[in-house]
Amino acid sequence: MNRSRGVIFFENPPSIVGFAAVAGDMEANGPLKGKFDKVFEGDMDGEKSFEKAESKMQLCAAKKAIEKANLKFDDIDIAFAGDLLNQCIGTNYGLRELGIPFAGVYGACSTMAESISLSSVFVASGLIDRAIAVTSSHFCASERQFRFPLEYGGQRPLTAQWTATAAGAVVLSGKVKGNIKVRAICIGKIVDYQIKDMNNMGAAMAPAAVNTLVNFFKHTGTTPQDYDMILTGDLGQVGSAILSEIMDREGYPLKGKHSDCGLLLFDRERQDVHSGGSGCGCSAAVLCADVLDRLNSGKLKKVLFIATGALMSPTANQQGESIPGVAHLVFLEGSE
Amino acid sequence: MNRSRGVIFFENPPSIVGFAAVAGDMEANGPLKGKFDKVFEGDMDGEKSFEKAESKMQLCAAKKAIEKANLKFDDIDIAFAGDLLNQCIGTNYGLRELGIPFAGVYGACSTMAESISLSSVFVASGLIDRAIAVTSSHFCASERQFRFPLEYGGQRPLTAQWTATAAGAVVLSGKVKGNIKVRAICIGKIVDYQIKDMNNMGAAMAPAAVNTLVNFFKHTGTTPQDYDMILTGDLGQVGSAILSEIMDREGYPLKGKHSDCGLLLFDRERQDVHSGGSGCGCSAAVLCADVLDRLNSGKLKKVLFIATGALMSPTANQQGESIPGVAHLVFLEGSE
Repeated sequence: MNRSRGVIFFENPPSIVGFAAVAGDMEANGPLKGKFDKVFEGDMDGEKSFEKAESKMQLCAAKKAIEKANLKFDDIDIAFAGDLLNQCIGTNYGLRELGIPFAGVYGACSTMAESISLSSVFVASGLIDRAIAVTSSHFCASERQFRFPLEYGGQRPLTAQWTATAAGAVVLSGKVKGNIKVRAICIGKIVDYQIKDMNNMGAAMAPAAVNTLVNFFKHTGTTPQDYDMILTGDLGQVGSAILSEIMDREGYPLKGKHSDCGLLLFDRERQDVHSGGSGCGCSAAVLCADVLDRLNSGKLKKVLFIATGALMSPTANQQGESIPGVAHLVFLEGSE
Repeated sequence: MNRSRGVIFFENPPSIVGFAAVAGDMEANGPLKGKFDKVFEGDMDGEKSFEKAESKMQLCAAKKAIEKANLKFDDIDIAFAGDLLNQCIGTNYGLRELGIPFAGVYGACSTMAESISLSSVFVASGLIDRAIAVTSSHFCASERQFRFPLEYGGQRPLTAQWTATAAGAVVLSGKVKGNIKVRAICIGKIVDYQIKDMNNMGAAMAPAAVNTLVNFFKHTGTTPQDYDMILTGDLGQVGSAILSEIMDREGYPLKGKHSDCGLLLFDRERQDVHSGGSGCGCSAAVLCADVLDRLNSGKLKKVLFIATGALMSPTANQQGESIPGVAHLVFLEGSE
């Protein structure tokens, strides 16, 4: 059983029955303008701290996804959620009031794919019916936690990515059938190419994406050409170039099939985000604001969503450690 | 299906086929002396930082549990693991070399019950066969992250708990049958009684334990007297007293059935740990060094293991936030 470890196909694939995305105004004025369920004002949206604003965003995304699924909080059997902040406070304080059984996850920017994967197995097992996967990130809260106080205003290198101020949520169900099914998942391994540059997350994450993708293609006997879109989140420009190069070498060229959430959320020419967007909320918001809609309407049929996480820690980095990466894959399929 | 949310019973209960516990020398010289699979020397055990020492402990526990299950790393389909350190670095760097598909979790001190719960559902679903649940904590790494630099040497109030330097790991299987089965789990909700004292985790976590226990008892129609042991981790003396009092009021008196990992790991008279032990590694080590052995040998039959987590964040605390708690339950049953 499952000797190609990590890859799990569902005989009774869970359906995505509700999804929502919220974003800050910078994100909402990018290429996905007009596609978000709610836009937050400024860095705080009336809250007293960046962290409280992130919690508010995550709660908002969860509420809207449940509402769009025509469900009540009490209808949800379990929530899988996490974020980038220490102790996942964006999540703990954000979802506190929902009263939904809660399993916290930590996968850095791979959180959305990890949460959807765990939700899918719980639902597919038939042991529960409905699960919600939620995540968020906030530029200001992340920058000051992982790098420098915002007031420092240090120049960011061109390899740096811009942590998105955004959140996304997906509701999955086993009984209720929707237009979008989770056909399979692939839980990734921790992959470490010894990258130590805290401003080059793309390079740290790309090898993890390759590892998960190659594992999935080998196990399924498919190639990138068998899918409409291979959506990574969030490698940015630098990481995407590395991904393409290694996939070519591995014999699975992505030719024309690859998109990256970090490049879809922002306009790099106009928005000065350097290598592109990042953060749990980036891939979650791009998925929930745009890609799921395209799957729902039949514009896309088969999508591999691979959220990549850089398991980066300032403490470990200061102790000379490298930045390991992890990438989880979700195979989404729209109806005929 | 499952309208008493969070409670999941298994028709084909997973078996615990391997488990291991490692501890620092202070923990190894407490009441559980001689029961650990490995004892680490001093705060570092030859490593260059407390954090690296914690990673080494977690890796050691995982390796020994897999070895005791007569399995190889490649036999394990997925690892669920996490710890108290920011970005869960005890886990990310500890398990990096195993090459096992990895899903990171964050549940503070509830991590062991959360990891075993997720492992159990994955295994019970039949979608995979073997999973490992791992966690750890380290007194020095935790103290300096959550409270003060160790050098500060501030006096600890009597409500404070001592973060255990320990790690534990459990291997679960669906095909291979063992003496210990996971009969059911109960995923807890985030419960917040507005405790703001960072040195009184017991008070912050006890209400979460009550919420999960009462939910489980109501759903199953059982009472504390139907079990041999109700094992909380880690409420300490203060939290245990609060738990007993509220459970009495709720109509589920624990009379003689309750034990707490924080009180089993250390000798409060002799070891100066104030309210007792805490940390992900505390409940994990007590479970894996002692309780699972007693279930395995038939000395215990029915045990409810409820690991409680205080979702405490220095940042949120400094912003005036309270400390929410969460508690997950695992119903363990030994063979006749």
